[in-house]
Amino acid sequence: MYSTSYLTGVLNAIFSRMGCCKDDAATITEILLKAELRNIPSHGVLRIKDYYLLWEEGRINTSPVIRIVHETPGTAVVDADNAFGMIGAKRSMQIAIEKAGHTGTGWVATRNSNHFGIAGYYAMMALKHDMIGFCVTNANPSVAPTFSIERLLGTNPVAFAVPAHKEHDFVADFATTPIARGKIALAEKKGEKLPVGFVQDEKGFSSDDPTVLKRGGAILPLGGDRVHGSHKGYCMSSIVDILSGVISGANFGPFVPPVVSYLPRKDKQVGKGTGHFFGAMRIDAFMPSAEFRERMDEWIRTFRKGNASEGQEKIIIPGDPEREAEERISREGINLVKAVRDDLKTVAGKLGVDFE
Amino acid sequence: MYSTSYLTGVLNAIFSRMGCCKDDAATITEILLKAELRNIPSHGVLRIKDYYLLWEEGRINTSPVIRIVHETPGTAVVDADNAFGMIGAKRSMQIAIEKAGHTGTGWVATRNSNHFGIAGYYAMMALKHDMIGFCVTNANPSVAPTFSIERLLGTNPVAFAVPAHKEHDFVADFATTPIARGKIALAEKKGEKLPVGFVQDEKGFSSDDPTVLKRGGAILPLGGDRVHGSHKGYCMSSIVDILSGVISGANFGPFVPPVVSYLPRKDKQVGKGTGHFFGAMRIDAFMPSAEFRERMDEWIRTFRKGNASEGQEKIIIPGDPEREAEERISREGINLVKAVRDDLKTVAGKLGVDFE
Repeated sequence: MYSTSYLTGVLNAIFSRMGCCKDDAATITEILLKAELRNIPSHGVLRIKDYYLLWEEGRINTSPVIRIVHETPGTAVVDADNAFGMIGAKRSMQIAIEKAGHTGTGWVATRNSNHFGIAGYYAMMALKHDMIGFCVTNANPSVAPTFSIERLLGTNPVAFAVPAHKEHDFVADFATTPIARGKIALAEKKGEKLPVGFVQDEKGFSSDDPTVLKRGGAILPLGGDRVHGSHKGYCMSSIVDILSGVISGANFGPFVPPVVSYLPRKDKQVGKGTGHFFGAMRIDAFMPSAEFRERMDEWIRTFRKGNASEGQEKIIIPGDPEREAEERISREGINLVKAVRDDLKTVAGKLGVDFE
Repeated sequence: MYSTSYLTGVLNAIFSRMGCCKDDAATITEILLKAELRNIPSHGVLRIKDYYLLWEEGRINTSPVIRIVHETPGTAVVDADNAFGMIGAKRSMQIAIEKAGHTGTGWVATRNSNHFGIAGYYAMMALKHDMIGFCVTNANPSVAPTFSIERLLGTNPVAFAVPAHKEHDFVADFATTPIARGKIALAEKKGEKLPVGFVQDEKGFSSDDPTVLKRGGAILPLGGDRVHGSHKGYCMSSIVDILSGVISGANFGPFVPPVVSYLPRKDKQVGKGTGHFFGAMRIDAFMPSAEFRERMDEWIRTFRKGNASEGQEKIIIPGDPEREAEERISREGINLVKAVRDDLKTVAGKLGVDFE
């Protein structure tokens, strides 16, 4: 078990040794550890080994110059100069928030970026500015659209954060697939079958075998199959891809670069790097903030007080599990599983950083 | 089989006799028939009987004054004065488009409205202005969130329209449930079972029986159950409800008014009527339109040319089936099933309108 402050020191040192400036190292560290605290370890310290290997191959720029390449009073396109995803993403969301301050809402499309951690972090940045926050990103292809046997989309997550008053804020942060990639990998390691509706094999037939992903299979969109509405999950994922990839000038669809060094970039590129899209909407651009927050409290209470199914304690409000985890893990410390600890030790060792 | 022009005349007369001005009658007529043409008859002429009964009970206002009640350069809240949904919705989308013309994007929340037909119509209004269009609406409660046995959400659809160049426009328009209500009703009429994952019974257990909806059951969110990601469908539907209902000052969650006259409004109301939310984003607020449209063409071709599963002809681009239907039905005519024809005859008769 590690304290947040100890890991903060270690990660800061690691990213500094890779050449990041102090502020950038702190940003990457904060967002990776936020994932650990919110119990989303698939987007936390686990990623550092892959980040290191990409950096080692010169596929990530640790001295980026983040630039606005196009803008109007309420919109911008940001070129993240191939930085670690967090750097361009945080700056882009700051720009969206600044623009919303002037025009009511702000919308920023970001290109030439990389894996940025948890989408919820950026959406939540809006909350303390009395705004609703929105964030989506495309991702390396792992998902087959309805009727496709090709992986043409990523798990393309959506995050949406809404401030309340006495209740906790509403924070939705979810992939547009039934299941996270990490959980499929876990089932494979354990030799377990998957529930039907998560993956298909190389011919597009439904499968319960997690290893099909290594043999030309694909993750299914939310909904699973056509009968159960996978075309709606495909629509959502496509919308995320168009906002993140097409309108930003990044890559889209199957051309989004991989997040691991052992996979090459596709020869064909249709833009620069990975793309994200950010939005901030000032509450008082629609109604007085106090009134809205009371309405949001009522929304949350209505759902929380709804009758739960047999065997379920209560209806969960989006953001509850992650917030409760954050309270607990901040107190108890961050647990890294052995494989992640070992990888971190290896990376730290190579960079001359102490980590025990 | 009816021609569009014949039905246009009949519907125009019906809505005029209910007291709508000429423009409003034309708007409602156009949007209902657009649903027929796009082969979404659940949102077409079928609705006129319920609209008539609601109007007869004084639950819809055919002489509305649509007002902006709050605005900034890029946002507005519209009070639709309890009009037929199409009236406030079309005006709201026009306002979003006008605002986007000035500030890059425009966002309008609408309250005190009613059932508005197909969400896609409003999103598609943006296309000819060189903009991306967005539209969501909340709806009367029929859906139980994950772990709930109460119907707390509607089928809350999302529509998103994106202009292309040589390819056809991308138009996604989908409910945040696995299946439309109308298809469940059809299975019930035929005495058929449903695939598991569409509905649950009054205790929250998975069911294949369409009649459970009459006995305290509920439609499930997209994803079906928790294992298959229903919490993500619940998140999407919640986001739609917060945008449509909370920030507009409309009703939200279980308080959204029914779309049929035989169901009373809930005693408790948390706002005015049904709520919608509209967005328009100018393409050139992000990149030159020609460049974007070529990129969008490439996105569409990439997906259309992807390898299809065994037994499938091709990967479908969102909007393809509806556009193809529109071409065919515009040519061949609109077919109304007997029950819908009979209902239309009854309504027309009561209002002194000829319909054969």
